[in-house]
Amino acid sequence: MIPLSELQELYDKNRNKYIEDYLTLLRFSSVSADASHKAQSLSCATWLENYLKGLGFKVERWELGGSPSLFCSYFVGESRPTVLLYTHYDVQPVDPLNEWTHPPFEPFIQGDTVYARGAQDNKGQLYYTLLALQALILKKGTLPINVKLLIDAEEEIGSPTLSKILPSKKEQLRADFVGVVDVGLRTPKTPAVTLGVRGIVTFDVSVKGSHVDLHSGSHGGIVYNPIHALVEILSKLRDEEGMITVPHFYDDVVTLSDEEKKHLSLDFNEKEYIKEYGAHPVGGEVKYSPSERATLRPSLEINGISGGYTGKGFKTVITKEASAKISCRLVPNQSPEKIKENVASYLKSLAPIGVQIEVHLHEGGGPALRTSSHSKIVKAFAKAYENVFHAPCEFIVEGGSIPITTTLKECSGGEVALVGMGLGTDRIHAPDEHFSLNRLNQGFLVVAETLMLLGNKEFE
Amino acid sequence: MIPLSELQELYDKNRNKYIEDYLTLLRFSSVSADASHKAQSLSCATWLENYLKGLGFKVERWELGGSPSLFCSYFVGESRPTVLLYTHYDVQPVDPLNEWTHPPFEPFIQGDTVYARGAQDNKGQLYYTLLALQALILKKGTLPINVKLLIDAEEEIGSPTLSKILPSKKEQLRADFVGVVDVGLRTPKTPAVTLGVRGIVTFDVSVKGSHVDLHSGSHGGIVYNPIHALVEILSKLRDEEGMITVPHFYDDVVTLSDEEKKHLSLDFNEKEYIKEYGAHPVGGEVKYSPSERATLRPSLEINGISGGYTGKGFKTVITKEASAKISCRLVPNQSPEKIKENVASYLKSLAPIGVQIEVHLHEGGGPALRTSSHSKIVKAFAKAYENVFHAPCEFIVEGGSIPITTTLKECSGGEVALVGMGLGTDRIHAPDEHFSLNRLNQGFLVVAETLMLLGNKEFE
Repeated sequence: MIPLSELQELYDKNRNKYIEDYLTLLRFSSVSADASHKAQSLSCATWLENYLKGLGFKVERWELGGSPSLFCSYFVGESRPTVLLYTHYDVQPVDPLNEWTHPPFEPFIQGDTVYARGAQDNKGQLYYTLLALQALILKKGTLPINVKLLIDAEEEIGSPTLSKILPSKKEQLRADFVGVVDVGLRTPKTPAVTLGVRGIVTFDVSVKGSHVDLHSGSHGGIVYNPIHALVEILSKLRDEEGMITVPHFYDDVVTLSDEEKKHLSLDFNEKEYIKEYGAHPVGGEVKYSPSERATLRPSLEINGISGGYTGKGFKTVITKEASAKISCRLVPNQSPEKIKENVASYLKSLAPIGVQIEVHLHEGGGPALRTSSHSKIVKAFAKAYENVFHAPCEFIVEGGSIPITTTLKECSGGEVALVGMGLGTDRIHAPDEHFSLNRLNQGFLVVAETLMLLGNKEFE
Repeated sequence: MIPLSELQELYDKNRNKYIEDYLTLLRFSSVSADASHKAQSLSCATWLENYLKGLGFKVERWELGGSPSLFCSYFVGESRPTVLLYTHYDVQPVDPLNEWTHPPFEPFIQGDTVYARGAQDNKGQLYYTLLALQALILKKGTLPINVKLLIDAEEEIGSPTLSKILPSKKEQLRADFVGVVDVGLRTPKTPAVTLGVRGIVTFDVSVKGSHVDLHSGSHGGIVYNPIHALVEILSKLRDEEGMITVPHFYDDVVTLSDEEKKHLSLDFNEKEYIKEYGAHPVGGEVKYSPSERATLRPSLEINGISGGYTGKGFKTVITKEASAKISCRLVPNQSPEKIKENVASYLKSLAPIGVQIEVHLHEGGGPALRTSSHSKIVKAFAKAYENVFHAPCEFIVEGGSIPITTTLKECSGGEVALVGMGLGTDRIHAPDEHFSLNRLNQGFLVVAETLMLLGNKEFE
């Protein structure tokens, strides 16, 4: 085991170069949701490939027409255990662009904070993972265990390519442990290992009326306005207590016992929340606490809506079409396929006569994942966090989704831990996303320490 | 009276030049809703001013910071009656731009049809009015009656400037008759004088949650999603029978007697409607016929809605704000002020705890207008239409609004008739707006004939 102090010394000595590399990574506008960014995604993949080949990794590009995901492997010996690390290099779209204080792909450093799309999610987390691998190889000429690193090109759109490819790559993916480096902590000083993520399914729904936009003076009250139809449909998806009204939506939900809940950190500071976000925690299922609603309970949210005239001033139009984007987060035991079917047919059943409704199910998505706190990889990460933070590690469940996690688990056969250095206040997926240089440094230490612990035969 | 055949001869001789002038007028992108078009509006105003000065009109620019409306007058004698004609040179916004077959400000002629924003509404109708004035002056060296022509720069945004200015211009506006040339016919072969327009009030409503966009994985189910709040609020504005649920909304509505209805053409061809627009006439108040709903009944329509991510692919965001645009059409005796207050306070009362709602009342708008079929100007237009069309003239009520009409009536003291050559199929306010050259020609004849009839002492 290399002492943490020695790794920190190395970090301090090379800090400026590390930051420069991190900023380079942030400058690629690798937005997976929009094909117009594909050239930038390719450049980003090439930069990563060169970096990893430079460390001695073998790199394969896994792709099916989209941007390439990178499968990178460093083999040290049959007798050593194998860890599969997963991160991603794609990022969320940047709109509304005008709400960014600085351009999203021109990283801006203020004090300890780095502002850019992807600063945290997930290029920050990817970069400190690379740093940990680099430092260990630099110090010892090799890695303490076999490492497989899968860098997804399409996580933000539900990993459509990897979810197709992985089942045919079981041999290459085989691992004892899987570390998904894409989540975070509840507070900057409390380390945490995440024992689960929610599943997700997403939909576009559109409502069509006439085949041309109509003047609302001449046609208002004649045709069924698609916007009225859409708001009526959407308003029926949740009841007054915030419960989702889709038939059979809750059928397969397994409720955690109080014993199981006790093991998880579920406290919630309402005052802090209101201060940070300016919003009261009163959405969703009123019967459950905010933490439970965001992690242990399924949800249905409208993520976007549009129709008619939305520019300056006013236009007295009745639009021919209005549409919305909807996502459901799922908990363990809920089947994405069943939920997709149930939501889609319920939406269709709600359409009034006079309009046509279309429901488009997005590819990707997947079921929830729950992992045990007793597995070796969870214990190793927890110990590493505690060694770096000098504070006890808590166990949490994440409300977000990393749909590929379940497939990774199945195809590798390894035990999963979800880890990371993100905070709820990092504004990921929003304008002014940011990360801190301090957490970049801590993340580097945590990943390096974890790999050493997993390679240490005495660690149990 | 100059025979119509002589006017038609003149038109035929100069047809190419007339069309060229008409296309010039259409090329100005005089969109009043968007200040970025102001230079184009000014150029349009200047072109019109020069045209009318060339005919011998005195022209004043009436403005209060916006684009100038033109007040043009041609005085022939104290003993002659005076008509005030109203049209407008501003046009609706053009979005969605990608749905236009040809660029909206590059007029395109196919056979008898002219495609352009404003081709009908209202530059087509304005231009044949100018042609009628020009022809009469050319033939006789003067006009048969005193003519005042008011060309609004802001009709499409509710005439905010004129509604402020007109009350101080009563002396200049004084007229025996008011002809509002901004409406149309129900079919191309049936002439019609419009005896009323609906009033209108418009609103923006926005619902705010957090002060930043949030990730729907981490925050879904915690905050009250503003899109959910908005669709819930909007879905409560009409009941299952299409009746508007705003308290006191219908209090002042006066129902027409069957006798009064009999005088109006209210038949409706459902098959034709479905064929033309691809939509079934099943919106609005189910208790009333489609024609009644669109003309004799008030309405409430959502004209636009937006919030969250609406681009390609998917973004799992909970937006900080969602908004909608709403308009109400009013019938005689409904007070715009009362309706504004009632709708705004009802919207506010519907907001759930956890979000802030803001209602912005737009300026402009105004009450409905209803005029008598027995007035001299209505009779003159009806006779002129019949002489041009060789078919009996019908009397209709228009569902759209020309809010300034009531103010024009009050400030001029004149009897009002609403006329024009528009058709419901002209796609005004929508992509591929169009007008026909034949109707441009007919409109020219109708206006010229009407002015001659009004100046003819024998006409009663």
